[in-house]
Amino acid sequence: MIINGKKISNELDASMKKEVLSLKAKGIEPKLVVILVGDDPASQIYVRNKHRKAIKLGIKSIVDRRSKTFSQNELLDLIDTYNRDESVHGILVQLPLPKQIDETAIIRAIAAAKDVDGFRPENVGKLFANSKEHYPVSCTPKGIMTMLDYYHIDPKGQHAVIVGDSNIVGRPMGALLLNAGATVTYTHILTKNLSEFTRTADILVVATGVAHLIKGSDVKPGATVIDVGMDRDENGKLVGDVDFEAAQHVAGAITPVPGGVGPMTITTLMQQTLELTKAANRRQLQTVR
Amino acid sequence: MIINGKKISNELDASMKKEVLSLKAKGIEPKLVVILVGDDPASQIYVRNKHRKAIKLGIKSIVDRRSKTFSQNELLDLIDTYNRDESVHGILVQLPLPKQIDETAIIRAIAAAKDVDGFRPENVGKLFANSKEHYPVSCTPKGIMTMLDYYHIDPKGQHAVIVGDSNIVGRPMGALLLNAGATVTYTHILTKNLSEFTRTADILVVATGVAHLIKGSDVKPGATVIDVGMDRDENGKLVGDVDFEAAQHVAGAITPVPGGVGPMTITTLMQQTLELTKAANRRQLQTVR
Repeated sequence: MIINGKKISNELDASMKKEVLSLKAKGIEPKLVVILVGDDPASQIYVRNKHRKAIKLGIKSIVDRRSKTFSQNELLDLIDTYNRDESVHGILVQLPLPKQIDETAIIRAIAAAKDVDGFRPENVGKLFANSKEHYPVSCTPKGIMTMLDYYHIDPKGQHAVIVGDSNIVGRPMGALLLNAGATVTYTHILTKNLSEFTRTADILVVATGVAHLIKGSDVKPGATVIDVGMDRDENGKLVGDVDFEAAQHVAGAITPVPGGVGPMTITTLMQQTLELTKAANRRQLQTVR
Repeated sequence: MIINGKKISNELDASMKKEVLSLKAKGIEPKLVVILVGDDPASQIYVRNKHRKAIKLGIKSIVDRRSKTFSQNELLDLIDTYNRDESVHGILVQLPLPKQIDETAIIRAIAAAKDVDGFRPENVGKLFANSKEHYPVSCTPKGIMTMLDYYHIDPKGQHAVIVGDSNIVGRPMGALLLNAGATVTYTHILTKNLSEFTRTADILVVATGVAHLIKGSDVKPGATVIDVGMDRDENGKLVGDVDFEAAQHVAGAITPVPGGVGPMTITTLMQQTLELTKAANRRQLQTVR
């Protein structure tokens, strides 16, 4: 079975479009600010795609572009302005940032209630402590959970193996799967005999940035394989971290690249923008009462 | 090899005693407040042991005992008082709390800079994001890392298997080992075929509260086995989660119960009290300048 991220994303978009209309009818306009510092070509494309998706759903989208010489203090001031602006519900600073800016300081400057990427320590901490309240979570792993749920793949009691332990994908992915009742193994660049781990995975999530790292023989028959990679092969073709051609004959379910995880990440960002919008509105109503 | 937690703890205590003297010579008196609500017998013992250890090291120790009918708002007010008291460096609320009190709300009320247990979401988030700054970490897993380091057991590239995924031991233990370069597997009550995981562990940490859950045959020959359990067997004898008699012949290194992890937890609490004391003092000096 091919997991069709594009299809799920389209369905979710259609329902979000209606939700935005109903929010606007109540006088609430969801608003996302994306700050892009510098002229990294990949970042330009990511930011453009986020902007287009927001517009398509009726979400107000501001792309605030700043030059690559923008200083850390200027960026902190800019974030502070958006933190104070009650019309703004989500703030995303596109990474990577130019070298003169400390990413950690920037992530911490975004108000927790507008941390649409879920990167602030208290939001990360709530995720890892399986807190029952609402908090934003890194979009790619959250989108993967939505995909699994759509296909009725329940992680409970399954062995999930994560390849790549980044703070943006691998680590929060493992926490979400652990919270859902999976046995979770984190593997990474220092892991010895990687194949021995991947071959025991009922759910295999690969996020390494290494084209075709995972071969068909690395996959357990019948496993669910989620490929977060967006790599180029020797011919410049867009491929994933998994050798799809070989792995699709072994896996029970597998995401293609493109059309798998990618569309889910951006749709999840929009979902999270709407959730932060609604949470802000609930807080305002409580204050009024 | 038997890992002697008592011995390491004694050595660390001796060096902390000197450090406290030198802090006091500079006019700095480390101070820990432990709040105990109700009359849980186990909690009484734990709190008494913490108090005695602090006194032994020259750390000022306040045990603030409140009746089991103490309300959540009263406890929040009490914490607020200690948060504002500049002479207090660490605040620990002994868990479990009586039913009328929400533990999550209480944990969040302790100032981050006095969160000597490392339970606040932002401290948990820093741990799971492998943040390079200083932050308090749950004492039992941190103490286990100290033990491994003492015996030159380097987790880098090793397969660490955690049995039990509590927020106090299992989850932060996995994060510390992942941050140290281990491949980490979290197992728990929903894990199928637990032995298949434990038998592949180079480092096995067991924290379940189930007496003798792990048999000799569940241990990989030569593995390091860390037993966090403090259980009673059918004869009322204090035992761990690991069948020590059988496992000691298979393991390369193993902690006994008692005398293994237990003494390290309380010593780590004192270390963390000193770290928070020094951090508070650095902040004060910066303010003065």
